[in-house]
Amino acid sequence: MKNVSLSVSNIPLLKSAHPDSWDTLTSLAKRHVGAKGYILFSQNDPATTFYVIESGWVKLFTETTEGEEMILDLLTGNDIFGETTYFYEKTYPFSAEIIEDTIYWTLPTSWIEFEIKNHPPFAMAMMQHMARIKMGRDKQLEHHTLQDAPQRVGCFILRLCQKKRSGSIKLTFPVDKHLIANHLGMKPETFSRALSKLSDELGVEVDGMSVKIPHLEKLISFTCRTCSNIFPCGD
Amino acid sequence: MKNVSLSVSNIPLLKSAHPDSWDTLTSLAKRHVGAKGYILFSQNDPATTFYVIESGWVKLFTETTEGEEMILDLLTGNDIFGETTYFYEKTYPFSAEIIEDTIYWTLPTSWIEFEIKNHPPFAMAMMQHMARIKMGRDKQLEHHTLQDAPQRVGCFILRLCQKKRSGSIKLTFPVDKHLIANHLGMKPETFSRALSKLSDELGVEVDGMSVKIPHLEKLISFTCRTCSNIFPCGD
Repeated sequence: MKNVSLSVSNIPLLKSAHPDSWDTLTSLAKRHVGAKGYILFSQNDPATTFYVIESGWVKLFTETTEGEEMILDLLTGNDIFGETTYFYEKTYPFSAEIIEDTIYWTLPTSWIEFEIKNHPPFAMAMMQHMARIKMGRDKQLEHHTLQDAPQRVGCFILRLCQKKRSGSIKLTFPVDKHLIANHLGMKPETFSRALSKLSDELGVEVDGMSVKIPHLEKLISFTCRTCSNIFPCGD
Repeated sequence: MKNVSLSVSNIPLLKSAHPDSWDTLTSLAKRHVGAKGYILFSQNDPATTFYVIESGWVKLFTETTEGEEMILDLLTGNDIFGETTYFYEKTYPFSAEIIEDTIYWTLPTSWIEFEIKNHPPFAMAMMQHMARIKMGRDKQLEHHTLQDAPQRVGCFILRLCQKKRSGSIKLTFPVDKHLIANHLGMKPETFSRALSKLSDELGVEVDGMSVKIPHLEKLISFTCRTCSNIFPCGD
């Protein structure tokens, strides 16, 4: 393992900590390499650790008593999770599993608790952070209700395009398609049919994990008309 | 209008304000009577006011450019909304409309801002409040994905039963069924079919707005097996 430090400045929430706390934070952070399939924690486990992803992919999910899984989030580099457990009776409200080989950092949740209590600007940043998460969930709910499957897949693809909003683009699905399907609230066969529709109507070409979109403007017009956000959205 | 004061002690978030602020809060609060159909504010309006419901029902919703509506929340007595707008660039992230004649209070969002900055226990209560809202949204998302329509309607009915968990119960749908259907992410005809299934399989009798459940245990077993919460849940 290389002798590297956690890049606090890349993580908006942690960056808001008091400058004096940055050193504590980097000295407390432990770096790990995790293989695909490794369960980091399970729903309702006691929460003493929060996580920062350096690279790779992690899914956050809940599971019913019948074993059905719902993927709440797909997270990657610079994403943080488990940081709000302080407000959930110090247990994890979801499970977390590595879905692509991942380098990640672990940090004690007691640090979050200390910083909230002792550094008001951090408490404020935490509230803003939670408001952003809630806003994202509101949007997911809206899309689950108002968008059809091809539009939800279109929105997922547009988020992979980041700031690019016109012309053609090639990209790669970052994780297995059945995981994306679950996260978008649909069965794998519905996801496949949605890709076929995007191909027939908008010329989107999918080959394995590769996606080629010839006209981003058409995909935007097709997808975003069923969303309440003002285009372009910041999601 | 009767000369009454806002009951701060009934609203968990406001109760966490500094005792010195309670008087300010009640002196700032204005009481209103609003008729069904009245729009309190629209998505993206500047947010200078937050709301507390004394009695009645309000829906929070978003609307797409094509005019499709998604009901995020159905709120009633002692519920609060617009209180987190401070974190959304001081605009409302949703619209609010009165759906049953309602008595409500308006308060300035600047009071929230002041209290967060000057009274750490209130900031902490605000974070807990936001965590609870986020948890509710996670659960809604999970149900939209993993529960079928009759189970989602079953869960809505169970929440109306409050703490009662066995035996028979009679209750009344608090708002129009098409609003409940939208909130649960289904079309009115799907909602009707779901009620028929609950009637055929569990003997639930629906007559207009009245609902009679002969065996709550059966409804719980039918509904909660597709949820990740540990039964009985606090929702």
